[in-house]
Formats: sequence, structure tokens, C-alpha cells
Amino acid sequence: MPQGRPLTVPEDGLTTRVRRSAPLLAVHTGAGKGKSTAAFGMALRAWNAGMNVAVFQFVKSAKWKVGEESAFAELGRLNAEGGRGGPVEWHKMGAGWSWARKEGNEDDHAAAAADGWSEIARRLADERHDFYVLDEFTYPLKWGWIAVEDVVAVLRHRPGRQHVVITGRDAPQLLLDAADLVTEMTKVKHPMDDGRKGQRGIEW
Amino acid sequence: MPQGRPLTVPEDGLTTRVRRSAPLLAVHTGAGKGKSTAAFGMALRAWNAGMNVAVFQFVKSAKWKVGEESAFAELGRLNAEGGRGGPVEWHKMGAGWSWARKEGNEDDHAAAAADGWSEIARRLADERHDFYVLDEFTYPLKWGWIAVEDVVAVLRHRPGRQHVVITGRDAPQLLLDAADLVTEMTKVKHPMDDGRKGQRGIEW
Repeated sequence: MPQGRPLTVPEDGLTTRVRRSAPLLAVHTGAGKGKSTAAFGMALRAWNAGMNVAVFQFVKSAKWKVGEESAFAELGRLNAEGGRGGPVEWHKMGAGWSWARKEGNEDDHAAAAADGWSEIARRLADERHDFYVLDEFTYPLKWGWIAVEDVVAVLRHRPGRQHVVITGRDAPQLLLDAADLVTEMTKVKHPMDDGRKGQRGIEW
Repeated sequence: MPQGRPLTVPEDGLTTRVRRSAPLLAVHTGAGKGKSTAAFGMALRAWNAGMNVAVFQFVKSAKWKVGEESAFAELGRLNAEGGRGGPVEWHKMGAGWSWARKEGNEDDHAAAAADGWSEIARRLADERHDFYVLDEFTYPLKWGWIAVEDVVAVLRHRPGRQHVVITGRDAPQLLLDAADLVTEMTKVKHPMDDGRKGQRGIEW
């Protein structure tokens, strides 16, 4: 549990108050479980603190729906109707991003991923949200669909106090260099190694 | 994203259906961030699947309250009032476990931890919940307040389909041996290294 006691105090001329509210760029990478789950857990915490939360899932199929999406829909409703927590938006690539209102096939995944990133960059410029989850965002970076240099430049210069959490295996070094917090989830043991299959409420 | 395609199919005579619904014992350990956060993220998923969720926090002070506790209180209310998701209980050691209704100081942390584990063992025997989070439970094990052998025996023989997630650094080897899923969270980079302090909505 964080006790809020830093190991060193930097000589950056900043007050504790300013340093405390510094926007965070976190990356969850590695081959183990828990990268996305921990990001959604952080989003839950952010929601509770009243932050405006937005999740962008860089997934192949919009049909795939994790339990967190439904749970966050409920939390978003609690905010809209009861003023509890913060507002929530949840966008998935798959068959077109939800804001784009495109229906049907989205065969060009590379173009869809690039569109998604452009929208996120616009929102960051506008300070639209307080807490962003870019779920499985390392894959379009890895496959060259989105330029890492561009992503890092946008993130480094984002205005205000916008927190960003990026998940996925094989995060590129440039992104790790830009991040404040990097956690590697390492697989020590996994039931699928023994031939078990995933189950609802556990794996999704 | 899990594709539900196991690498091998075991020759254990079980059907996929039985294997699929096997109760999971997961351990999140290591010095990195995200151990508890990922466990609460899993609990969110379990809640959404209608599971009965119980969190037991082995923390020093009951005054420490993470954002997830408030958020899960809302989710529990959504279940009680609207039938959404599953029921939620949240118990903290600190100044006495909530079910014990003891007020005031709880100076003997070792005794309190042992009481907590006894209650959890009783609940497992009664199949009271579907999804248990034993948060920071490795510490009382490490300090010898609770016998690892006893914990492993109870967990190995728990009846029904009860999922258990245990978090904390330095998980003992016996526990790792008994677990189905072990993830080690490794710290690659942490803002507190640079003298930053924790902030609400991010660290708690």
C-alpha cells in the first residue's frame, strides 16, 4: 500500500502539491495476465474520484465484450443519473469506432487503428477526459500501423492533467522511456498451460 | 485477449465443460504495481457475471480506504436495489474485522489476522461466496501469523466452485505451488522513484 513517502525528493523546484498532481503515463506490458485488468481497476479508482474516464480498446472484433465494459456502463449511468463518480465512455475499434457511427465491416484494421489514435490525440489536445485507458494499444504500434514517435510526442506534450494508461505486450522502448510508471506482468503459471479453457466472469 | 484455445488438452478424463468451470486460485505477487488493482479488476468482472464477491483486506489501518471500496459499495447497492451484477461484501482488518463488530484498537495484529483467516476458512467450507479477494494476504503468511500449510490445505480442499485471488509481495512457494494462476508484477519504473507522491484517484 502506498504510504506516500517518496524515497528521494527531486530538486526540480516544484512544490509537493504540483508534483502530486502531475499527470501520469503508465504502461502495463509483459506476457502475464493482469495488464488490462489492472488498467480497468485503475479506471475504477479514477471513476470513484470523479474523473472523466474514457476507454479505447484496440481490439479486432467489437463483438468481444469484457465484463468490465458492462460494469463501467452501469457506473456511467450512476454518474449520469445520480451524480456519483465520474462520466464514462467506452470505445472499441472492431467494426468501426463508436464515435464514428460506422456500421458493418472494417476490413482495414490499420486504417481503423490510425483513426482511433487521431481521435485520441484530438481529445488529448482538447483535454476532453481526465483518465484514458488505451487498451491493447501496443499492438498497432508494434505492427507499424501507428508511428511510435508521433504517439510519444503527443503524450509528452499533452496539456493539463490527463492520465493515460496503455496496455499490451512488447511495448516499444520509446514509449517505455516516455512513461512515468511501467509494470511488467510476468506469467509464472497459467491454467491454460494445463489445457483449461477460459471462463466467464474470470477471463472476460 | 484470451482466445480460449488451450495449448494442450490434458488427459485427465474431464470434459471441457468441467474443466472450464474449475475454480481458480490466483496469486498476484512481485514488487511491482497492479497486484491489488488487477484483483479488484477481476472482482469487477466477477460482479458483472453475477457472482457473489467478498473482499478481505489484510491492512494495518481500517482508516485506509481505497477508491475501489467506495466503487464496490455502489456496485453492491446496484445489486441489492436493481438486481444488477452480484452482491458485494468488503471487510478490512485494521481496527477489527467488520463482521466482528469490534470497535476501537486492535493492537494484536497477529491475532486479528488469524481471526480473519478462520472466518474465511469457515466461509469457504460453507461456500458462502463465489469470488474471494484476499488482499495483502501474503504478509501475515510471511510474518508467520497464519500457517501457510493450513491455508494451502483449506484452499486445496475448498468445496464447490469458489474462486480465490490472493495478493501481496513474497508469496510463499507452497502457495505458488497450489495456485492455478500466478502473475508476478515487476516494477520497471515508478514515479515515486523520482520523488513524486501518490495522488487520489491514481494511488488510492
